[in-house]
Amino acid sequence: MAVDLAALARVTGDTASADAVGTRAMQVLRPGGALRRLDEIAVWLARWQGTDRPAVDDSAVLIFAGDHGVAAEGVSAYPQSVTGAMIQALESGVATASVMARRVGARLTVIDVGRGVPCGNIRIEPALTDAQFDRAMAVGRSAVAELRAVDLVIPGEVGIGNTTAAAAVATALLGGDAADWVGPGTGLGAAGLANKVAVVNAAVSRAAVDQPLDALRELGGWELAAMAGAIVEARERSIPVLLDGFVVTSAALPLEMAHPGLLDHCWPAHVSAEPGHRRLVERLGRRPILDLEMRLGEGSGALAAVPIVALAADSVVRVATFEEAGLV
Amino acid sequence: MAVDLAALARVTGDTASADAVGTRAMQVLRPGGALRRLDEIAVWLARWQGTDRPAVDDSAVLIFAGDHGVAAEGVSAYPQSVTGAMIQALESGVATASVMARRVGARLTVIDVGRGVPCGNIRIEPALTDAQFDRAMAVGRSAVAELRAVDLVIPGEVGIGNTTAAAAVATALLGGDAADWVGPGTGLGAAGLANKVAVVNAAVSRAAVDQPLDALRELGGWELAAMAGAIVEARERSIPVLLDGFVVTSAALPLEMAHPGLLDHCWPAHVSAEPGHRRLVERLGRRPILDLEMRLGEGSGALAAVPIVALAADSVVRVATFEEAGLV
Repeated sequence: MAVDLAALARVTGDTASADAVGTRAMQVLRPGGALRRLDEIAVWLARWQGTDRPAVDDSAVLIFAGDHGVAAEGVSAYPQSVTGAMIQALESGVATASVMARRVGARLTVIDVGRGVPCGNIRIEPALTDAQFDRAMAVGRSAVAELRAVDLVIPGEVGIGNTTAAAAVATALLGGDAADWVGPGTGLGAAGLANKVAVVNAAVSRAAVDQPLDALRELGGWELAAMAGAIVEARERSIPVLLDGFVVTSAALPLEMAHPGLLDHCWPAHVSAEPGHRRLVERLGRRPILDLEMRLGEGSGALAAVPIVALAADSVVRVATFEEAGLV
Repeated sequence: MAVDLAALARVTGDTASADAVGTRAMQVLRPGGALRRLDEIAVWLARWQGTDRPAVDDSAVLIFAGDHGVAAEGVSAYPQSVTGAMIQALESGVATASVMARRVGARLTVIDVGRGVPCGNIRIEPALTDAQFDRAMAVGRSAVAELRAVDLVIPGEVGIGNTTAAAAVATALLGGDAADWVGPGTGLGAAGLANKVAVVNAAVSRAAVDQPLDALRELGGWELAAMAGAIVEARERSIPVLLDGFVVTSAALPLEMAHPGLLDHCWPAHVSAEPGHRRLVERLGRRPILDLEMRLGEGSGALAAVPIVALAADSVVRVATFEEAGLV
């Protein structure tokens, strides 16, 4: 990559705007701290939007799709063909994320990263070659670059087999047994779950992960690498990012582990029902907005949090201060 | 009251529509149960909206305001005059709830129940006479009746002193020491809190609460009784209700305790930071949607949940089934 991630991780955004919003939050017409957690989100938004009047009026969800060689190991309740069907449904506006995006006023784009060319079966081989990894990152970066004016970005994903990849990334980076990170995904039973654990353990034993980003190439796959690229591009453009569930957070985590601070422009939108997600999110040090036991992907958990982020900003920017209301 | 509350509590809403939405939720394009908690909200909405195509496109927040005699006991961090200032701010669109209502597309109405005529100081006398209680309930009922077409109602409140009233209602109905139910409200310190506990204990010892609704008259006050009336009227008209925080839930609880089932059309929107609220909500047997430590009132916590309820409905009604998408 051309970008210097270490330098990027040191960029702190617009501290003056963040401070101004934090100060205003204590001056608006309510008891100080009555909406403390929302105020924190407004401050974060100000920092990365680079304005003391943060707002969410033009958000975008980018849904990256990829096929996984590891799907051949029987790790999913659905066949790989479902990924293509979901892309069609997302694009024709009848999938859950499409419907949610309309309701919250977000643009939705589906990006085919590597469908039809499944990434390597991580049980026995790296998910991506170096060249494939760079290409996937670049796809993610371009997708954000093409959004132009946008005030909030949501990376999302579809890809049968990708909770297996995500669990492998988490296991490789954070340790513990695969069983700590593997969940039912789209709905595996007990036998399927045991097989999924065995596959993840085999994959992690096989993989050569010297640096955190190696985990994405060795164990992640197309759409995970693309989402990491999208998050990097958003940081370069100082666009705040809402993180969806287990797969998205697994794709983001290697960036933070490689360069602490590189996810400062990201806020975890929710805690999903996938068991490992809560611990992944804790690693990021920010409290998720929603806890509704969603486990769908498609960026849906982050889409559900968009209105809350919008309210957080409005509740500082548009509410009068005691002084403006003539009450001091 | 003219209405037979016992009979009303037995009305079950539109079970056929609820069942239809529950069935459809398992047929739409996602793994069954992936959005289970949102699906439950959609089913509830269908039951009380009386349609298998529930939606939230026209919601309304009704903010009831009243003055409390108990404010003279120094139970609030703010003087009583703040209630009037907040009404002005709400009506002129610069208060937090006004801003939130605009963002989520809800109508906002402020209803002056008994300002300028503080209800009785509950430490030494009943909050309301029988006639005042009936009048306050009627005000709440009229406010809902006048909304006409509306698909979701939010009762909200402003009233300096009303978390003291709410704690007294909770203590009288659910028992325990007042200290279990008293919280900082708008921001009391430790000494203020101890005084508030003493006031609530005195009020509860004084009050004659034979029936649950007596608690609203003896210990609640103007806007609490009005909110109970609003909730009853919504039930009569089969309009779903989102419950805000501690004060609203305290106003609603006597209805459920008097006539189990009478709050079936109500969903707790959030858990507030006011310590007693979580236990009050548990008494209702439904999981709140948000847990953002909000402690403002004005219906704000429920307003924040409106978009989630809207998403829950859309995610069943507007998402294609596998069959509609040609995938079976």
